[in-house]
Amino acid sequence: MPTLTEMDQQIAARRQDFEAAIRSGVEIPTVSMDPDRRGDIRRGAEWAAGLLRDFGAEARIVETPGHPVVHGRLATPGAKRSLAIYNHLDVQPANEPEWRSDPFKLVVDGERYIGRGATDDKGPALTALFAAAMAREAGVPLDIHFFWEFEEEIGSPHFETFLQSAPRVDSVLVSDTIWISRGKPAAPLGLRGMQTVRLVLRTGTNDAHSGLTGGPARNPVAEMCDLVAALCDAHTGEVKIPGFYDEVRQTTAEEIEGFLASGFDPKEFQRVHGFRSLRYTEAADITRRIWALPTLEVHGIAGGYQGPGVKSVIPPWAEAKLSMRLVPDMTPQRALARLTSFVVAANPDVEIHAEAALEPYLAPSGGPYVAALERAMSEGFGAEPAFVREGGSIGAVVQMQRALGCPVMFLGLSLPEHGYHAPNEFFDWQMAAGGMKAFLAYFREVAAL
Amino acid sequence: MPTLTEMDQQIAARRQDFEAAIRSGVEIPTVSMDPDRRGDIRRGAEWAAGLLRDFGAEARIVETPGHPVVHGRLATPGAKRSLAIYNHLDVQPANEPEWRSDPFKLVVDGERYIGRGATDDKGPALTALFAAAMAREAGVPLDIHFFWEFEEEIGSPHFETFLQSAPRVDSVLVSDTIWISRGKPAAPLGLRGMQTVRLVLRTGTNDAHSGLTGGPARNPVAEMCDLVAALCDAHTGEVKIPGFYDEVRQTTAEEIEGFLASGFDPKEFQRVHGFRSLRYTEAADITRRIWALPTLEVHGIAGGYQGPGVKSVIPPWAEAKLSMRLVPDMTPQRALARLTSFVVAANPDVEIHAEAALEPYLAPSGGPYVAALERAMSEGFGAEPAFVREGGSIGAVVQMQRALGCPVMFLGLSLPEHGYHAPNEFFDWQMAAGGMKAFLAYFREVAAL
Repeated sequence: MPTLTEMDQQIAARRQDFEAAIRSGVEIPTVSMDPDRRGDIRRGAEWAAGLLRDFGAEARIVETPGHPVVHGRLATPGAKRSLAIYNHLDVQPANEPEWRSDPFKLVVDGERYIGRGATDDKGPALTALFAAAMAREAGVPLDIHFFWEFEEEIGSPHFETFLQSAPRVDSVLVSDTIWISRGKPAAPLGLRGMQTVRLVLRTGTNDAHSGLTGGPARNPVAEMCDLVAALCDAHTGEVKIPGFYDEVRQTTAEEIEGFLASGFDPKEFQRVHGFRSLRYTEAADITRRIWALPTLEVHGIAGGYQGPGVKSVIPPWAEAKLSMRLVPDMTPQRALARLTSFVVAANPDVEIHAEAALEPYLAPSGGPYVAALERAMSEGFGAEPAFVREGGSIGAVVQMQRALGCPVMFLGLSLPEHGYHAPNEFFDWQMAAGGMKAFLAYFREVAAL
Repeated sequence: MPTLTEMDQQIAARRQDFEAAIRSGVEIPTVSMDPDRRGDIRRGAEWAAGLLRDFGAEARIVETPGHPVVHGRLATPGAKRSLAIYNHLDVQPANEPEWRSDPFKLVVDGERYIGRGATDDKGPALTALFAAAMAREAGVPLDIHFFWEFEEEIGSPHFETFLQSAPRVDSVLVSDTIWISRGKPAAPLGLRGMQTVRLVLRTGTNDAHSGLTGGPARNPVAEMCDLVAALCDAHTGEVKIPGFYDEVRQTTAEEIEGFLASGFDPKEFQRVHGFRSLRYTEAADITRRIWALPTLEVHGIAGGYQGPGVKSVIPPWAEAKLSMRLVPDMTPQRALARLTSFVVAANPDVEIHAEAALEPYLAPSGGPYVAALERAMSEGFGAEPAFVREGGSIGAVVQMQRALGCPVMFLGLSLPEHGYHAPNEFFDWQMAAGGMKAFLAYFREVAAL
């Protein structure tokens, strides 16, 4: 293995190549939710496979009923251990008027690489690839696979198709998460799951005149409001469904310590998301409620009058759009069953339509992979990582855990200020260089397990 | 005065003329809410003025900033008493696919006159005009004015402009209401008023990701549901704002008797409006709640996700569209003040935007005009009228009461099956003939006051 100084020199020597690679990646507008970009997605897959081959890897474009997945492999002779690195190369649309440059032309501003997809997730994908090539040069005996998806931004609807033919590996490393603040490396050890539900109430066949019928007529929007208010305390966020919290694990003092060590700043959180105020103001409360507690949220009530002013109709139906975010040990099935019992008792006329179900995910909170991650991030960034959770759901993670039956860990390189899904998104050389060192260290650690 | 038999003969002799008049009226598509029909409204006003002149009346087209009002006058020499008859000659759109014939071509099917506006309100307007002409022939000493509006279906926004130059009269008779059932004449003695309100809550600047923020983030739709649930019991309709019912008059036994005598049938009410079920099942409860009690209804909550499926955003704002229907002795100002206090205490971040305010109206429940109406309807239809209320609000009524300072009474000729605002709307000769007799009798009665 090279010394740390040698490694720094090697990494510095690759900066121009990295810039060239991120430039060619960002300049292919792989917007997966735009049907007109189908050709660009195809170009992106061919570019990715070509790049892998340039680095001496095998590469194949695996077709699915949707966009393809690129599968690369960089095997070192004598490798006994295997690792798959998951990234995605599709990007969000970039229609925001706030872009100060063409989102699909890379702008290099000092250490910053500005363009759509720079941090989510092309920059981290390339960082991992550069590190893997350096690991092979250094003779790290590891069989490294690359799973590069092109449908992450639309919910990974066909990733399971790819997984059917994917190689069995000892573990997976996902590089698509965000630290809490630049000074402090952070790695999630769990994701929330989700069950989305539509509640539909029909009380009539058409809009009725509220003057001619208001009073004795049922009002489905009012009944739906009543039900939503009964399901969850809007002011505290406490879910009022009996048994809802039964499977929720007590958050340990160690976990809370990890959450607080992440550098989470309530004021910054409020500012970044544009909130006027929050239900809770203490970092411990906020982080626990995003990362370790379930929620029930109403995302909208459809069915009543939505236009300008007031049209005084009694609507014939209402539909509430809900989600329950679930934490480890909860299951979408059980949460749905409890919700159903509650709704049937509260208002038997309400129909319950279950929509998407995603299991929560919890990585091992100790053991060799966590230890490897801790050493790798310390080596890469000069500070021990905080172990946090991710409040959202990444469909591919539970799919990989289930299909491959192995631990899925997270080594993300994005920062809050990089602007995931936002205008003027960027990645930076500091995170790329630190990331290469961290990946290299992780490869060395897991090769030796 | 002619005998009843002579009157029947005179009316029968006018049936062809009436058919010709309603045909020419219906075939001008005076849809006031369609800007492309401005020319048709103009044609309608000219047709109406011409028709008045054909009947020997004076007529003028009074301009307003919107559509005009046609003012007619048929004075009998020696008249000491004056009466204005209010009708409107604009109509609802007729785009419903259920129309079995061209809505703007009159179809005569036996006694039925089918076409948009036949019963709302051209048929009743012509019935009154025919009766007025007969009254003059019979020498009834009454100065009869016609106020024919062309903006009733869009809320009478410019009728007050007309009223500034309108003649002072002893009373007004509005002919634009619906009986409860064919067998039983009904006349409302009151209208509900209305205060519409938008409640707006902003908790953020943009949609937030419910995975990244759900839990500590405020949810404005949930808070709005909570507020709506606190304002009114969705299942009983009871308004929970302190003091809301303070000014509501106790309904008298006589009034309830009138309501029940109207032939109100809960099953028919439910069927006609397409309701699956009702909050109340007894006719006394239902009629009292439509006609004599105030309401608070939510007509919609805007702001959350409204599309197909579930998009799991935390929306940045929510807006509830509410109305309070008000009964006599309540005022929009007081109702709004009480709502405001309640909302400010419940959720101080909610902005309150008052929209339309319409005063409730209550006609004298006894006295000479009620007695005249009772005798007139008995003579016209062979049965005493039930005195009910109207649950809706007619803007022009309170405007006339205020501008002219005289009683406003109601003699409507429409039936539930005529299909107000519905496809295949019709009027019928039986109601026209009975209506002419009733109007004639009413003119005779009020001329003698």
